[in-house]
Amino acid sequence: MNHIVEVKATDVRFPTSRDLDGSDAMNPEPDYSATYVTIRTSDGDVGYGLAFTVGRGNDVTVAAVRALAPLALGLDLEEVLADLGGFSRRLTGDSQLRWLGPEKGAIHMAAAAVVNAVWDLYGRREGKPVWQLLSDMTPEQLVDLVDFRYLQDALTRDEALEILRRAEPGRAARRRHLLEHGYPAYTTTPGWLGYTDEKLVRLSQDAVAEGFTQIKLKVGAVLEDDLRRLRLAREAVGPDVRIAVDANQAWGVPQAIEWMRGLKPFDPYWIEEPTSPDDILGHAAIRRAVAPVKVATGEHCHNQVMFKQLLQAGAIDILQLDASRVAGVTENVAILLLAAKFGVPVCPHAGGVGLCEMVQHLSMFDFIAVSGSTEDRVIEYVDHLHEHFTAPVRLRDGNYLAPAAPGIGAELYPASAADHRYPDGPVWREGTDV
Amino acid sequence: MNHIVEVKATDVRFPTSRDLDGSDAMNPEPDYSATYVTIRTSDGDVGYGLAFTVGRGNDVTVAAVRALAPLALGLDLEEVLADLGGFSRRLTGDSQLRWLGPEKGAIHMAAAAVVNAVWDLYGRREGKPVWQLLSDMTPEQLVDLVDFRYLQDALTRDEALEILRRAEPGRAARRRHLLEHGYPAYTTTPGWLGYTDEKLVRLSQDAVAEGFTQIKLKVGAVLEDDLRRLRLAREAVGPDVRIAVDANQAWGVPQAIEWMRGLKPFDPYWIEEPTSPDDILGHAAIRRAVAPVKVATGEHCHNQVMFKQLLQAGAIDILQLDASRVAGVTENVAILLLAAKFGVPVCPHAGGVGLCEMVQHLSMFDFIAVSGSTEDRVIEYVDHLHEHFTAPVRLRDGNYLAPAAPGIGAELYPASAADHRYPDGPVWREGTDV
Repeated sequence: MNHIVEVKATDVRFPTSRDLDGSDAMNPEPDYSATYVTIRTSDGDVGYGLAFTVGRGNDVTVAAVRALAPLALGLDLEEVLADLGGFSRRLTGDSQLRWLGPEKGAIHMAAAAVVNAVWDLYGRREGKPVWQLLSDMTPEQLVDLVDFRYLQDALTRDEALEILRRAEPGRAARRRHLLEHGYPAYTTTPGWLGYTDEKLVRLSQDAVAEGFTQIKLKVGAVLEDDLRRLRLAREAVGPDVRIAVDANQAWGVPQAIEWMRGLKPFDPYWIEEPTSPDDILGHAAIRRAVAPVKVATGEHCHNQVMFKQLLQAGAIDILQLDASRVAGVTENVAILLLAAKFGVPVCPHAGGVGLCEMVQHLSMFDFIAVSGSTEDRVIEYVDHLHEHFTAPVRLRDGNYLAPAAPGIGAELYPASAADHRYPDGPVWREGTDV
Repeated sequence: MNHIVEVKATDVRFPTSRDLDGSDAMNPEPDYSATYVTIRTSDGDVGYGLAFTVGRGNDVTVAAVRALAPLALGLDLEEVLADLGGFSRRLTGDSQLRWLGPEKGAIHMAAAAVVNAVWDLYGRREGKPVWQLLSDMTPEQLVDLVDFRYLQDALTRDEALEILRRAEPGRAARRRHLLEHGYPAYTTTPGWLGYTDEKLVRLSQDAVAEGFTQIKLKVGAVLEDDLRRLRLAREAVGPDVRIAVDANQAWGVPQAIEWMRGLKPFDPYWIEEPTSPDDILGHAAIRRAVAPVKVATGEHCHNQVMFKQLLQAGAIDILQLDASRVAGVTENVAILLLAAKFGVPVCPHAGGVGLCEMVQHLSMFDFIAVSGSTEDRVIEYVDHLHEHFTAPVRLRDGNYLAPAAPGIGAELYPASAADHRYPDGPVWREGTDV
C-alpha cells in the first residue's frame, strides 16, 4: 500500500520589505513568506503546497501544519485521492483543531497548504496540471468535493450539478481556446504605495506596452497622494485601460464611501477591500453607494460561508478568491460554483509567493468547466519572486499561458527554499539578500 | 521604569475526554485546554490570562502568543495601562501578524490571552477585580478602549459615550445590588451529549434544587435522542424553568429550521449555534423561522465586526460573548456597547477552562455601567475545573457572587499548571489523571 509518510512544513521568507515591494495601506513592510509543505508517500510520490503570509507569524502557520500532519500521515494515498472532499473535511473538521477556527485563520491556511500539496501530488501522478485535472473530472466527481452542509440555502448539490452539466458540451472548445490564447491578466506591479511617482508612471506605461488592459493601484493612506497618483496613472495609461484601486481594508464604511467619491473623477474600475474583510453588510452598503464603481473583495475572505453571504447580500461585483486563505483547491471548487450560481465574475487574488502559480489553475478550470467565460475576468499578476519556482507562470500579451507542468505550480527550487529558510537560511542569517 | 520583561505561554491541557465532560454534536471528545499566559514586569508586577481551546491545536495558540510577545516585551507598563486601547490595537494591528487573521483564529485568541493577562495585572495593581476596575472608569476612559474604525456605521464614539453617561447615575445602586444578590446564572452541567438519560435527569433536578432557573441541553446529533432527552429534562424541571438547547453548529440553515420545528413542543427557550458561526444571514433566516424560540450565538464569533453585523441583520436575540475568542476585555467592552445600542441582552459563553472566572467580570460591568440591567441576562455556568483556579467562581442560589479577588480570575494554581502541562506534565506523561 502507498501511504502518506511525510508532511513537512518549512518556514520560508523573502526579505521583500527591504525594497518596499508589496507595500500598501495596511502592509507597509511585508516580508513575503510561505508556509511551504512537502508531502511524500511510501512509494515516492511527492507534492508541494504552500500558504502565503507576509512575514512574522509564518512560524504560527508552520505550527498549524504540524498540528494537522497527524491527520494525513499513514493514510492510503489511493483512498485520499478517491475522496478528496473527505480528505479536506478530515483536515478542517477535526473536532479539537477546528476550535481554532472554525475554518478560518492560521489553522485554515495550514489546511490550504496541505490540501494544495495533495492536489499537486495528484496532478503529478496523473501527469496533468491541476487546471486540466479538474477539467477532466465529471460533474459528479466535482460536486463530491464540495461540503454542502452550510451552503444549502444558497447552492444545493443539484444546482451545482446543473451548472457543471450546462458547461460540459463546451469544455473541449474552451480548452483549445485557452491553450491558444491564455487567460486574461491584470497587473499590480506599478501601484505599490511605497513606489515613487516616477516609478509608478514608468511601470504603468510598461504595463500597457506589455499588453495589459488593467492595472491596479494601492490607495487608502493619504487622499491627496491617491488623487495625484491616480491622475498620473490615468494620464500614463489613457482612458481605455482599466485602473482598479485597492484600499487593503484601510477604511470604515462611511469613510470608504466618502474617499471613493473623491477618486471618482479618475474612473476607477473597482475598489478592492474598502473595509474589514468580515464586513459583508458593510461591503453591500459601500457597493450601493459607489456604483458604478465595482466592489471587489476576497483575498481575506476566510471560507465558503463568508463568500456565500457576500453573494447573497449583493455585496460584491467581483469575487477575488485566494489559493491559500480558504482550504485550497477543494474549497475553491465550491466557491467557483457559488460565484457561477450568482453570476459574479471571479478575479483571483495573486502575487505574494506562488499565488499566481496556483490560482491560474482555478481560473482556467472555471473557464473550461464552470462559468465557461472569461468576460470581465482577470487574474492578478505581480512580477515578484517567480524565479524561485520550478514552474513559474508565463505571460504573453497580458495573458497567462496555460501551464503545462503537472501539478499546481507551488514547488520551490530546493536552493531557494534553503536560502530563505527562516531564521537559519543564509538570507536571514547574514541579514542581506543573496 | 517598570517594563514588561516576560510574556510566557504554557500549554495546559485537562484530559476531559476521558469522562466525556463537554461532549456535544461537534466536539465529541474535547480535552479542555488553556493557552496560559503569564506577564511580568521589571518591578515584579504579574498578570495571568488564558485562551481556551479543546485540546489539539493548543500548541498553535501557544506559538501565536510567542509570535505576539515581542510586541509587548520592553513596553513601559505605565504607558500600556494609560492606553489599553492602543495596546490592544498594537497586538491585533501588527502589519505582518494580522495577515493570519485579520482579527480571527489562533492569532486573535492569542491576543485575547495577552490582553486579559494585562487586565489581570492592572486589577491586581489597583487591588480591584476587573468588573470593579471597569465600573470605576469614566465614560471617556471606556470609549477610549474601543477601536471604532469598523464600527462607525453601527456605533459612533458619541453614541457609545451617551450609553455610558445614561448609565452613570445608577452605578452605585447597581453595584450594591450586585454585591448583595450576585448575577443570574444558568447551568449547562446536566446536558452534555455523552451523558446517560439517568444522569441528565438527576443533574437537571439537582440544578433546580440549587436555584437555577435555566438549564441547557446539547442537541443536534440524532433527532430522536434530542426529543427523548428534551422530554425527560422538561419533565424533570417542570414548565417554569427555561431549557435552552445548543446545536454547536451542527446544522445547515434549512435543517436547523426543520429540527427546531421538531423540538418546539418542549418549549426550548433559545437555540444556540444552530449553524456556522460565520453565517450572519443564515442566523437571521433561522431567527425569522423559529420565533418565538430565541436565537443565540457568539462563542465562536471571532470579532466585533461580526457581532456588529449579527446585530445589524437582526440575526440574534441573545449575544453570547466569549472571554478569549475576541481579543479579550478591551474588545468585549466594544461588544457590550454594541449590544446595548441594539438592545440585545448579553449572556456570555462560559465553561471550558476559566471562562466562568473571566466572563463574570464582563457581565457585572455591563450591569453596573453599560446596559444597567440583568433582565433576560444569565451567565453560563458549568461545574468543571474550577478547583484549579486560585479564585474560583462562587455561586449561591443560581447566582454568580461578585468576585472580590483583584484581577480577572485566570490564575491557575502553579501545581495545576505544572501537572497538566502538555506534553510533559505528569497527567500526560503517565496517561492518567492525577
